[in-house]
Amino acid sequence: MSNLPSPSLVSFHAATDEFRTGKDTPREFLERSIARLQVLEPKLSAFAALSLPRARIAADAATARWRDGRPLSRIDGMPVGIKDVIETFDMPTGMGSPTHDGNQPRRDAATVFALREAGAAVVGKTKTTEFAGAYATDTRNPHDHERTSGGSSAGSASAVGAGILPVALGTQVIGSVLRPAGYCGAFGYKPTFGAINRGGSHDFQSHSCIGLIGASLEDIWHTSYDMVQRCGGDPGQPGLFGSEELAGPLKPTRLIKLETPGWALATDEARQQLESKLSVLSAAGVQIISRDNDPDLDAFEKSITDILQFGFDIIGYESRWPLKSVAYRDRQGLSPSALDQIVKADALGLDGYRELMKRRVELRVAFERLATKADAFVTLDATGAAPKRITYTGNPSFNVGASVLGAPALTLPLFSDENMPLGLQIIGAQHADAKLFAVANWLIEN
Amino acid sequence: MSNLPSPSLVSFHAATDEFRTGKDTPREFLERSIARLQVLEPKLSAFAALSLPRARIAADAATARWRDGRPLSRIDGMPVGIKDVIETFDMPTGMGSPTHDGNQPRRDAATVFALREAGAAVVGKTKTTEFAGAYATDTRNPHDHERTSGGSSAGSASAVGAGILPVALGTQVIGSVLRPAGYCGAFGYKPTFGAINRGGSHDFQSHSCIGLIGASLEDIWHTSYDMVQRCGGDPGQPGLFGSEELAGPLKPTRLIKLETPGWALATDEARQQLESKLSVLSAAGVQIISRDNDPDLDAFEKSITDILQFGFDIIGYESRWPLKSVAYRDRQGLSPSALDQIVKADALGLDGYRELMKRRVELRVAFERLATKADAFVTLDATGAAPKRITYTGNPSFNVGASVLGAPALTLPLFSDENMPLGLQIIGAQHADAKLFAVANWLIEN
Repeated sequence: MSNLPSPSLVSFHAATDEFRTGKDTPREFLERSIARLQVLEPKLSAFAALSLPRARIAADAATARWRDGRPLSRIDGMPVGIKDVIETFDMPTGMGSPTHDGNQPRRDAATVFALREAGAAVVGKTKTTEFAGAYATDTRNPHDHERTSGGSSAGSASAVGAGILPVALGTQVIGSVLRPAGYCGAFGYKPTFGAINRGGSHDFQSHSCIGLIGASLEDIWHTSYDMVQRCGGDPGQPGLFGSEELAGPLKPTRLIKLETPGWALATDEARQQLESKLSVLSAAGVQIISRDNDPDLDAFEKSITDILQFGFDIIGYESRWPLKSVAYRDRQGLSPSALDQIVKADALGLDGYRELMKRRVELRVAFERLATKADAFVTLDATGAAPKRITYTGNPSFNVGASVLGAPALTLPLFSDENMPLGLQIIGAQHADAKLFAVANWLIEN
Repeated sequence: MSNLPSPSLVSFHAATDEFRTGKDTPREFLERSIARLQVLEPKLSAFAALSLPRARIAADAATARWRDGRPLSRIDGMPVGIKDVIETFDMPTGMGSPTHDGNQPRRDAATVFALREAGAAVVGKTKTTEFAGAYATDTRNPHDHERTSGGSSAGSASAVGAGILPVALGTQVIGSVLRPAGYCGAFGYKPTFGAINRGGSHDFQSHSCIGLIGASLEDIWHTSYDMVQRCGGDPGQPGLFGSEELAGPLKPTRLIKLETPGWALATDEARQQLESKLSVLSAAGVQIISRDNDPDLDAFEKSITDILQFGFDIIGYESRWPLKSVAYRDRQGLSPSALDQIVKADALGLDGYRELMKRRVELRVAFERLATKADAFVTLDATGAAPKRITYTGNPSFNVGASVLGAPALTLPLFSDENMPLGLQIIGAQHADAKLFAVANWLIEN
């Protein structure tokens, strides 16, 4: 991780040993978070709302439980941020849109409720692009304030990357968790479709998910596991599989180098980072499967050259509602980007949508067949460093694949480009999230 | 239909010919609805909120379009009611719970939005049991004000059965559309799982649905079709299949008499009604398959003796959130019934839930295999007349099967018990909703 520029990630997991001994407490951990927030937030604009008094009450209760040796969970007292498309009963859910200013739900989303049940301290709502779509918010990258933090989970990535929070929730339907996590030098996780309950999240398209941006693999795994034990996966889905503890390092036998349409758009420096890593892995005895030596993979790469547009077509149709309903009430409140999306989606129609769903099934079958050939897929997380402007959240060509395929994916802050963070992305088979973490656990050390 | 007590159903479809000629108009149709509402509502308590000025504007616009020969749809100007667990931007969504008094969403649910796009006049929100669960509301049966209208779609059934509305939306996860529809002498429809977009409905468990209660098969089919063209099915689902027009009568070759656990609980009069109908059908040349002559069916009946508890176990687990989140904020606002449900569900846990999901897949496989043997399943819609009290919404043992199986079902107001309406229920294979309507269309005439 030598190339990682000024990584200021602050892990909650790393602090819990001292919670047990009393040398540190969740309340003190929270106060350090708040202190960083107060210094950095004026520069970053990562938060849409704060709930500090309630967070302090939660941290104090957790402090007592850790002291008594009876924490509610591994994340008892952990400060956490919630993307502002996810409902909270104590803060408005603004959706990154003036159409939802002051919108106050009467409940917590399933994940937020589960976090509270596990003892976590919900610090605030993190900024999002408009309805988690393309229209940017004003959040800035903690590694360079002139650059985007990515999107749509902009505030979550910025807050974790800046070391304000150890974990924040995001949502991803194209590349909205992994891309901003990578841009901001954080770990990012997009689970298997349905593995984490989306109830109470605006992001409810047919392959969207609740994802996590965090300071370490442990922070992300513990939070995911402890939430799902309390709120389950999506209704009808089996939920996240795996053990309570993060799986130990698993050296992969074979890895598939997946190019995706992103490869053609990536910077030379970004490509070089991945190639170098693959060389190191190869030297360590890991077999690398690439499109040059595997015709099935080559055929698959060819079949997904248009997958970004394919993903946009799906979510466009699925977003007609609620976007059109919001337009009916408050058209002026929507961005030109959202209004344009409505026009395009209306042209598709139900029959067109059914064709998209059929093609998605075929892609998933092909992907799951490929997945049996190796322990994981590896690729970049983004085409390069975060773009040097605030109004564009970056290209998601490397991220859309795992989203459309419903597959679990992680980004690891191992690379750099233009002296900015860049992620190594690994992707696994559906429901093999725990194994993916095990491989990631090995990759960050090798 | 000779036994049907005072059926006062008022079809919109039946009136549209005169909208074309100008002898009648959607605005006059609406005013007749409102006049009945004003007389009957003090007795029925079917509505939670009204939006009459906006409904009149919609009806006037539809009147002009019909006059010009350019209605937006077959339901342009149709007065419609919305169950109060489904979001509306112009009326609060109260969930039948004091915890949601004055809860004002910023959007319409997908179906409500689609209704408005099709020109329908949204008259009001119809009363629901608490969060569409077991705890009754105060709505009364239009055929006997001392009796329940059933639940949870209580107000929708009462308003349609009373002839106030031609169509009202409900939701069903156990028996919440078909049972109240049958009790109130209306037609009821529960679609194939996922066939009508649930976005913006509280009822989001893994086999719940948006359903319709209506005055005729045409009213229900037109409304369903015209909504789905505008809002699709659930994200990822292909949506309702079928043609624009209601399919003509289809004489079934074979029908399966399904007993369900309800048969053992049904009144003699109710059973007799079904047996008589089956005799008539048999005499008309329809082959009746029953558990006495089909071992597979007998095995299936034996496998579903506990399906009501099975259904409650599933929705119990899936309802921990949001019920527990509401309890966290306002425990006093929940009924003892809801609080008891939380306690039971907490005991199940994620592993227990996964076992339920496995069993549901097995049941669906067995059901779909049976479905290939006949054109439809026929059974009762309820164990007998609506119970003679307001605090109990009746036994859903006949309804839970189609819900758990994700299969389409219709109730037809063909029977009676205690001089009250009782429904004939027919159930089809997943995605064969249009064929089910065709069989129903034949059954109501034969």
